[in-house]
Amino acid sequence: MHELKIPTERHTQLIDISGQVREAIAGRSGSAVLVYVPHTTAGLTINEHADPMVARDFEMALEKIVPEDWGWQHIEEGEENAPSHPRASLMGPQLVIPLTDEGELALGTWQGIFFCEFDGPRTRSVYVTVLA
Amino acid sequence: MHELKIPTERHTQLIDISGQVREAIAGRSGSAVLVYVPHTTAGLTINEHADPMVARDFEMALEKIVPEDWGWQHIEEGEENAPSHPRASLMGPQLVIPLTDEGELALGTWQGIFFCEFDGPRTRSVYVTVLA
Amino acid sequence: MHELKIPTERHTQLIDISGQVREAIAGRSGSAVLVYVPHTTAGLTINEHADPMVARDFEMALEKIVPEDWGWQHIEEGEENAPSHPRASLMGPQLVIPLTDEGELALGTWQGIFFCEFDGPRTRSVYVTVLA
Repeated sequence: MHELKIPTERHTQLIDISGQVREAIAGRSGSAVLVYVPHTTAGLTINEHADPMVARDFEMALEKIVPEDWGWQHIEEGEENAPSHPRASLMGPQLVIPLTDEGELALGTWQGIFFCEFDGPRTRSVYVTVLA
Repeated sequence: MHELKIPTERHTQLIDISGQVREAIAGRSGSAVLVYVPHTTAGLTINEHADPMVARDFEMALEKIVPEDWGWQHIEEGEENAPSHPRASLMGPQLVIPLTDEGELALGTWQGIFFCEFDGPRTRSVYVTVLA
Repeated sequence: MHELKIPTERHTQLIDISGQVREAIAGRSGSAVLVYVPHTTAGLTINEHADPMVARDFEMALEKIVPEDWGWQHIEEGEENAPSHPRASLMGPQLVIPLTDEGELALGTWQGIFFCEFDGPRTRSVYVTVLA
């Protein structure tokens, strides 16, 4: 299990971490890669990395799908992050990506791996594990 | 593949099953654990287990994201569970969690594994499989 | 890694691919199957296959959860597919399904594996990998 450190800059922010995941698995063999977030207000998704506006659209969409004003019961002193929790779970805590016979991530042409911050800025961890 | 039995008590209910998953994998070795729900109106997520209000917030949020009054076409005699199906899929049918070198679930400090009931009360199954 | 080809017919369409996944893994042994979509406007989910209205309900629900009129920033010439991207990510790019001791998909009685098209019609790929 390899650990990446991801610094985030905004409250809600998608960050392309494809390069870091690729580096973490370089030279290792297996059938798939598990990418995992050990946080409860951040998630992972795979989507288009060519146009950065797609990531911005996700940030807007998640804040609209799960809005601030729903009468949340979870309250942390000094924080207002209740909607961050379901936003994170809608994206999900993990990705599993197959490896090609050459040991490369089998990402599609337009696909990038995105860390999804919903309660930043923070420094976050991501675990990368190669599955047999 | 180990099978857990989870009794649920309410129509929509998140239940922390971290302890049962931990017991199911005790003494087994591998790189990750697959937790899987063989149902179509229940799912799984990972989120905060410290404050039980987070689970209550999820129950409220999923019922708002996918409301009852959307003109559903799926009708079962005596049941009104059409929105339960997409609610379950938004959380997802499976989780894959890495194992540490010591064989422990690599859950973050605040993370718990939650069974997500969307058509209870029922007795549900959860499958636990260790991946190599 | 085995590749399936899935032709789709509508802009938003769920298609049961359980049979194709079953064929792809026939005679192979392992602990689980990874099903993966290398696209950014399509996803995968598991849900009820008995009543086809459940799939139709998903199509309606995803178009309502992520509507067309949210002021999207991602614009492709000649295409209006910005909301297709988050719809795909809400379903997710992959599924991991345990295998029984007999090497069968451990799907529940009502469960089918659905390819989720959000920008069709197209011909799509799905990768199937058996995990050890």
